[in-house]
Amino acid sequence: MLKIKIQLYCGEDIAMGPGKADLLDAIVAHGSISAAGRALGMSYRRAWLLVDTMNRCWDKPLVETSPGRSAQGGARLTERGRDVLNAYRALQASLGEGAQGADAIFLETVMLGQPRLARGTPD
Amino acid sequence: MLKIKIQLYCGEDIAMGPGKADLLDAIVAHGSISAAGRALGMSYRRAWLLVDTMNRCWDKPLVETSPGRSAQGGARLTERGRDVLNAYRALQASLGEGAQGADAIFLETVMLGQPRLARGTPD
Repeated sequence: MLKIKIQLYCGEDIAMGPGKADLLDAIVAHGSISAAGRALGMSYRRAWLLVDTMNRCWDKPLVETSPGRSAQGGARLTERGRDVLNAYRALQASLGEGAQGADAIFLETVMLGQPRLARGTPD
Repeated sequence: MLKIKIQLYCGEDIAMGPGKADLLDAIVAHGSISAAGRALGMSYRRAWLLVDTMNRCWDKPLVETSPGRSAQGGARLTERGRDVLNAYRALQASLGEGAQGADAIFLETVMLGQPRLARGTPD
């Protein structure tokens, strides 16, 4: 299976990538950072750190939280957050289509579905 | 900076990706697994394991080694190895071109060059 991972680097930090885009979708769906993190199987601390990185890597914050920023507080995407998420998803879709040419087909044809056993591995 | 990582999964293993493609290039350049690994700053064991995975994930091996497979032995790409490497590089190039549309330009425009300092970080 061919996977394409798009990562946007802001210095050493990843401003947007597959995991952060999924977190933004989950914030839209669940309305808070803690619930979004829970839905993705990550701790509140981890989810909060990803949001913090996103909010520091773009010209405007992508996520706004209700005052107090407690684990129970609500969160939603800003307009910039929606625009960045939409552009990232559109880029994923267009690159996914681009990966259906002769080179990709050749690779998927000659690659095995599962690796052969290592030489010397007991049957 | 926008980075695109193409990974080909063979079951749970990565049959080809940026690191493995670089290792194949280094084997072409240096003529052995140990020298190729050294050029990339990886141990002989690590380089050998990557080659072993590649050789088990495709219909035919990508790398052939001289008998004995010692750390000093020579290694070269098979015809399949050259074809897979070429197709992977071509795919990288074509997806790289695909990532120059309006969505990518928007993302690179609104992303900062460096993250802002965390709120509360001392100056």
